[in-house]
Amino acid sequence: MRIAINTGGGDAPGLNAAIRAATLSAISRGWEVYGLKNGYGSLFTDKPFIPLTADRVKGITMQGGTILGAANRGNPFEMPYQKADGSWAAEDRSDEVVRMLKKKKIKAVVAIGGDGSMYIANQLVKKGVHVVGVPKTIDNDIFGCDITLGFDTAVTTATEAIDKVTTTAEAHQRIMVVEVMGRYAGWIGLHAGLSASADIVLIPELPFSIDVIVDKVRQIEKSGKKHVIVVVAEGATEEGGKRFVRGKKIGQAELLGGVGEYLEKELAKRTGKESRSLVLGHLQRGGSPTTYDRLISLRFGAAAIRSLENGDFNKLVVMRDNRIQRVPISEVAGKIKTVPADSDTVLTALDVGISFGNGDA
Amino acid sequence: MRIAINTGGGDAPGLNAAIRAATLSAISRGWEVYGLKNGYGSLFTDKPFIPLTADRVKGITMQGGTILGAANRGNPFEMPYQKADGSWAAEDRSDEVVRMLKKKKIKAVVAIGGDGSMYIANQLVKKGVHVVGVPKTIDNDIFGCDITLGFDTAVTTATEAIDKVTTTAEAHQRIMVVEVMGRYAGWIGLHAGLSASADIVLIPELPFSIDVIVDKVRQIEKSGKKHVIVVVAEGATEEGGKRFVRGKKIGQAELLGGVGEYLEKELAKRTGKESRSLVLGHLQRGGSPTTYDRLISLRFGAAAIRSLENGDFNKLVVMRDNRIQRVPISEVAGKIKTVPADSDTVLTALDVGISFGNGDA
Amino acid sequence: MRIAINTGGGDAPGLNAAIRAATLSAISRGWEVYGLKNGYGSLFTDKPFIPLTADRVKGITMQGGTILGAANRGNPFEMPYQKADGSWAAEDRSDEVVRMLKKKKIKAVVAIGGDGSMYIANQLVKKGVHVVGVPKTIDNDIFGCDITLGFDTAVTTATEAIDKVTTTAEAHQRIMVVEVMGRYAGWIGLHAGLSASADIVLIPELPFSIDVIVDKVRQIEKSGKKHVIVVVAEGATEEGGKRFVRGKKIGQAELLGGVGEYLEKELAKRTGKESRSLVLGHLQRGGSPTTYDRLISLRFGAAAIRSLENGDFNKLVVMRDNRIQRVPISEVAGKIKTVPADSDTVLTALDVGISFGNGDA
Amino acid sequence: MRIAINTGGGDAPGLNAAIRAATLSAISRGWEVYGLKNGYGSLFTDKPFIPLTADRVKGITMQGGTILGAANRGNPFEMPYQKADGSWAAEDRSDEVVRMLKKKKIKAVVAIGGDGSMYIANQLVKKGVHVVGVPKTIDNDIFGCDITLGFDTAVTTATEAIDKVTTTAEAHQRIMVVEVMGRYAGWIGLHAGLSASADIVLIPELPFSIDVIVDKVRQIEKSGKKHVIVVVAEGATEEGGKRFVRGKKIGQAELLGGVGEYLEKELAKRTGKESRSLVLGHLQRGGSPTTYDRLISLRFGAAAIRSLENGDFNKLVVMRDNRIQRVPISEVAGKIKTVPADSDTVLTALDVGISFGNGDA
Repeated sequence: MRIAINTGGGDAPGLNAAIRAATLSAISRGWEVYGLKNGYGSLFTDKPFIPLTADRVKGITMQGGTILGAANRGNPFEMPYQKADGSWAAEDRSDEVVRMLKKKKIKAVVAIGGDGSMYIANQLVKKGVHVVGVPKTIDNDIFGCDITLGFDTAVTTATEAIDKVTTTAEAHQRIMVVEVMGRYAGWIGLHAGLSASADIVLIPELPFSIDVIVDKVRQIEKSGKKHVIVVVAEGATEEGGKRFVRGKKIGQAELLGGVGEYLEKELAKRTGKESRSLVLGHLQRGGSPTTYDRLISLRFGAAAIRSLENGDFNKLVVMRDNRIQRVPISEVAGKIKTVPADSDTVLTALDVGISFGNGDA
Repeated sequence: MRIAINTGGGDAPGLNAAIRAATLSAISRGWEVYGLKNGYGSLFTDKPFIPLTADRVKGITMQGGTILGAANRGNPFEMPYQKADGSWAAEDRSDEVVRMLKKKKIKAVVAIGGDGSMYIANQLVKKGVHVVGVPKTIDNDIFGCDITLGFDTAVTTATEAIDKVTTTAEAHQRIMVVEVMGRYAGWIGLHAGLSASADIVLIPELPFSIDVIVDKVRQIEKSGKKHVIVVVAEGATEEGGKRFVRGKKIGQAELLGGVGEYLEKELAKRTGKESRSLVLGHLQRGGSPTTYDRLISLRFGAAAIRSLENGDFNKLVVMRDNRIQRVPISEVAGKIKTVPADSDTVLTALDVGISFGNGDA
Repeated sequence: MRIAINTGGGDAPGLNAAIRAATLSAISRGWEVYGLKNGYGSLFTDKPFIPLTADRVKGITMQGGTILGAANRGNPFEMPYQKADGSWAAEDRSDEVVRMLKKKKIKAVVAIGGDGSMYIANQLVKKGVHVVGVPKTIDNDIFGCDITLGFDTAVTTATEAIDKVTTTAEAHQRIMVVEVMGRYAGWIGLHAGLSASADIVLIPELPFSIDVIVDKVRQIEKSGKKHVIVVVAEGATEEGGKRFVRGKKIGQAELLGGVGEYLEKELAKRTGKESRSLVLGHLQRGGSPTTYDRLISLRFGAAAIRSLENGDFNKLVVMRDNRIQRVPISEVAGKIKTVPADSDTVLTALDVGISFGNGDA
Repeated sequence: MRIAINTGGGDAPGLNAAIRAATLSAISRGWEVYGLKNGYGSLFTDKPFIPLTADRVKGITMQGGTILGAANRGNPFEMPYQKADGSWAAEDRSDEVVRMLKKKKIKAVVAIGGDGSMYIANQLVKKGVHVVGVPKTIDNDIFGCDITLGFDTAVTTATEAIDKVTTTAEAHQRIMVVEVMGRYAGWIGLHAGLSASADIVLIPELPFSIDVIVDKVRQIEKSGKKHVIVVVAEGATEEGGKRFVRGKKIGQAELLGGVGEYLEKELAKRTGKESRSLVLGHLQRGGSPTTYDRLISLRFGAAAIRSLENGDFNKLVVMRDNRIQRVPISEVAGKIKTVPADSDTVLTALDVGISFGNGDA
C-alpha cells in the first residue's frame, strides 16, 4: 500500500509530530509513504513527492513548522494561474490531481488541515479519492472535534505574552490591549484571557459595547487596581455591527489597523488612561509544540493510519469525549465550532470577574 | 454562606489557580471563604483559618505550590501524635474536626486532593460534613476523571527533562534512563515518553522483562542509532515480580536505589553500553502550571462552587468526556485509574516504535 | 542611615531583583529603606514612601515589573501639571523634591534607571542630593557600562519570538520582518538577530539601503533557501535619510506604521515574495528576568549599597571588564553607547552570512 | 586551507553554535572544514572525518548536544585499548594522530573543550600541530577566561529546577537540598543559588560545617520561614575534610550516594525537619542553549577562525574584560579558575542573607 500525506492551510505547531506518527505507523505496517511538497499544487511541479522514511521524520516531533512546506497553492479546485496579461485567475484542476495520485499509485491521502482543507477533502472524496483527515488549526474551530492540533501551543504563546505585558502594564498603570487570533471563534482569546487573568475578553461570539467596557474599566479602577488587561480576538465585533464586521473596520474605524488598535485609541480617549496595544499575529502559529500538542498530534497521526488500515475512509479522526473517534468528513466540512455562551469555561471566566464587554458584568 | 477550602496530599501545579477560582466564585455569590492552613491538622492549632479574599488570591494563578500550605497532618482519622515515650502513634480525631467546622459555621468544604483526600472526604461525608471534591494529582490516577489538575505540568516538566538529556545521550552514544513519578499508574511515563520520543517506556501496568529490553537495545543499535532513551515509572515492576514489587526492590536489587538505578546498572552490564540514570523526583511536583493546568484548575475551582450552589454535595467535580461533570465521591474513593493497555495512546506509542519492555516489539 | 530607592523610566526585567538586593543589603547594615512610589512625582502625593522590609521584597527576584511602580511623572525638573484651561505644561519642582527628601531624613537615593534617569540624577547631585545609580534599560545603551539590567531578557524574548516565526516563514516560504526595540542603538537587534540566525539585521548605527536588501533576498533564494528573516530595530534608518529619520517615516513612508511595516510592504513589492511583519513592542519590556538578568540585577543592587557605605556618592555602578566598577554619573549622563561597527559581534554576524543591508555583503 | 574541528569532553549547550560559526566563517574565507567524529579516537576508524558545509550546519545554533559526537576516546596520549586477556589499558598514539592530520592536509585544528581538552591541545602543539582553542565547559572553570560556553545554560537549568522545587518545599515546610555540578569550582552553585534565592549555598572553595548549617536552619525558622533551600555543588567538602574529599565520601558517609543525599539525611536528623534531596546531574549538560550561550558560542567559533586567519596559533580564544581576546594555551592548560571568596557575587550573596555554611553568617 502506498499513501500520501498532505498539510493544508496555515502553519500550526504539531504538524511535524502528526507527520512523524503517520509515517512511522504506516511504515510499521509495510506501507510506503510520500509527502506532498507544499500541498496539492506540488503535483503540477517537477518534484511533487517527498519520500517519507523513518530517517526523514527522526527528531521532528518537537519542531514547529512542517517538513512538507505549507500549501500556498493548496486548493485543486481553485488553482491560481497567471493570465497572459499578468493578472491572476483560478481554475479547477482537481481532475488532474486525482489522475496524478492514481498514476503514482497513491491509495489514500492523509489530509492534515483545518476547515478549508476538510472542505477540499470532501470534494476530493466525491471524485473517488480515499481521504482520512487530521484536524489542525490553532483556532480550535473545527466542527465535531473537541480539540485540534496547534491550539494548546497557540494558547500557551498568547498566555505567556499576556503574562509578560501584564507586569509592565501594572508598573505603568496602563490599559494594555492584546489582540490574538480568532476570526470566527474566540477559543484562543477565551482560554488565554482566562489563564492569564485578563480583566476583559472580547470574542466574536459575544459582540461587545465600548460603553460596557468603559464602565468595567472604571469599576476596576474603583477597586484600587490601576492596570487593565484587555484580550481581544481579531474577529471580535462591536454590538450592532457599528464599527466592526468580523474584525474588519467600517466607518471611522477604517483609519485604524485592527480591533486592537481601535480599542487602544478609543479606551485612551474615553477613560483618560494611558493605553497600549500589541498584535500577537504570527507568533501564535509557530514554535515548538507544547507537550499537549505533541501528544495529540502523534495520536491523531497514528489514528489516521489505523483508520486507513480498517478501510474506514473519508473520515476525520477527532478527539471527542476524551477518545479518538472518527466522523464523516462530509458531516464537518463547511461548519465552524464556536464558543458556546453557556460553556463552563465562559461561566468560570464570569465567576472570576472577567467581563465579555457585553453587559454581563 | 461560609465555606472552607482544604488542599490535601502532595504538591501539584494548579492548586493556587483552583483556590483562586473557588474563592472568587464564592465571593461573587456573597459567600465567605476560609482556607484550612496546612490541612485538617490545622484545626488543632491556634490559627487554623486563613480568610480568603479577592486580594489574597490576586495573581496566584501562575504560582506553583499552595498558599494554604500542604497537609503534613492531613488525615483526621489517623492524626499523628507523640506518645509519652517519644514514639509516634495515630488517633481518630474526626469528630473534633466535624465539631470545629460546625463551630466556625462552615457549611461545606471544597476538598482539593487525590485518591487519599477523596477517601478521607468520603469518610467525612458519612459524618455529615458537606464536601465537594476537586481532583488533584500529578499522577492522573483518580478514578472517574479523565484528567486531573497538575498532570499536564508534570508531563511537561518530564518531557523537557528527557529532551535535555537526549541531546547529551546522543552525543555520548549512551543509554539514558529517566525515572519519573507514578507508583501505581504509568500516565506520566507514557505521556512524557511518547512526547519526548523515548525508545523504551516502562510503566506499572505492563511488567517488563530485562531480556526484552536488552533485545530492544540491540535492535536499536543495529538500526544505526547509538543512543537509547528509557523512561521508567518509579512503580514499574519486573515480570514475574522477580526484582520489583511496586518499585520496591527485593533480593539483589535491594542494594540499589530505585528502578532507574537498577536499570542503569543492569543494562550497562548486559549490553556493554555506557549508561546513566536520572531521577526527576520532586521536579515534577513544582513550578508554574502550564496554560492547560491553569485552565483546568480554574474550571474545577469554579465548578466546585456551582455544585455547592446547587446543593449538590458529596460530589467530585471531574473532567469527563470533555465536560465538567460531577460524580459521587463514594463512587471514586479508594479506586485508581490505570493506563488501559489498549488505549489509543499505548497503540500510538507502539506504532511509532516504542517498546514497553514486555515482548510487544 | 535612611535611604530611598527610585526606579525611573520604562519597565525592564530585573528591577525587582535590584530592589531586593539593595533593600536586603541596606537592612543587613542596619539602615532603613524606603521606595519612592511611581517615581519622584510621588513626593507630591499623600503617600510617597513605601517602607521596604525583608518581608516586602521576599520572592520578587523572579518577578517582572517593579513593586515601586514605574514613574509616569518621574522628572522633578519638568514635572507636568494641568493648567486652568485644561492644557498641560511642565515646571521645575526639583527644589521641593530636595527639601522633601531632607525632611524625611533620606541620606541618599539609589536611582535605578536609564540615560534619562542618569541625566536627572546628575542634576539632583548638583543640588546636593547623594545619589548612586544602577544602570537599567532593555536597550543596553547606557554609556560606560558593558551591560545593563533588562537587556538579556529582552534579547531572549526577541530571540524566542524570531525562532517562533521562523518555522512558519520556512513552511510558507515567506519574508518575515520582525521589528524590535532600539531607537538609538541596535544591541537588541544585533544580539537577537545573530542568536536567532536571521538573514538580515538592520540597526540604527548602520543605515540600510533597500536595494542592498533586495539583492540579499535574491542571493538567498538563489542558494535554495526560500524564506528570509529580517530583524529591524525600530530606529533603523534608510541610507541618505530618504525615508526614515530615527524610525520616524517621512514622505511616502508616513502612511505606514513603522519601519517593520515599511519593509514588509516594500520587500513584497520589489521581490514578489509573500511578506509579513511583526512588531514585538512591549513584549520585550516584561516578563520574568532570565537567570543572567536576575544575577546582574542583584549584583548591581548590592553594589549600590556598598558604594553608599563607602561614602562614594554620585556614581553609577557598572559592569565593566567583567567587574562591578563605579563611574561618576556626570561622565555618563547625556551619552549613549552604540554598537561599534568593528565589534567582534558584528564581525561574527558578517562571518556567518548576515547582511546589515548596507553593502557589506 | 583545510581545517578540522574537534569537540572534547562532556556535552555542553552551545557546542553546535560554535561549530556552525567556525564552519561558516572558514567557508566564507574559501577554506575547507572537517569535523572529527567523536574526537581524536575517530582517526583510528574507517570514517574519521565529517565534511562540514553550510548545509550541514544549517539550523543547529539552537540545538543541544554536538553534531560531531562527544569524544569517548578523546585523548590521543592515552588511547584506551583492550588487551588479549580482555582487560583495558591505554597507550600513546599521538604520533599517529599527528601523522593522519598531516596526511589529510589539515593545517590546523579548532579544539573546542575544557581544561582536559586544553591540556591535550597543549601537548599536540608541542608536536607541531596548529591549534586554536575554544573554551567550553558548563563548570565555567577554565583558567584565563571570564566565561565559558555552556555555563549560562547550566545555571539557567539549575535555577529553574530550584525554582520548581522551592514552591513544593514551601508548601510542605521542608528542607530541600539540590545538588548541582561543580567538582572543583562552585560557579554553577553560586550563580544558581543566588538567582533562585537559596538560603544556603555550599561550594568546593568554601568548606562547610554541618554545625553552622544547622544553626542557619534554626535561625531561618526563628524568622518565621518554614522552608529552607540548600544548593550544594557535588564537589563541596566538609570543613577539616572530615567526611568529604572532593565530593567523595569517607567514613560513615560512604554508605550514602553523594553530598546532596548526605546533607538530606544529616539535616533531617539534626533539625527534625522533613528533608528531601534532588541531584540535577545530566540535566545541566543538555538542552537548547540560552540566548547568551548561543551568542558567546557563535562569537568564540568565529573568533577562532580569525585567529587562524591571522596565523595566531596555539591560542585559546577567551572572553576577558568583555572582549574576545587570545591567550596562549600553554598559559591556561592544567589550571583551574575557582570562585574568589571576595568576588562581588559572593559579597552579594552574603548581603542578601545567603550562608556558605562556613561561619560567615
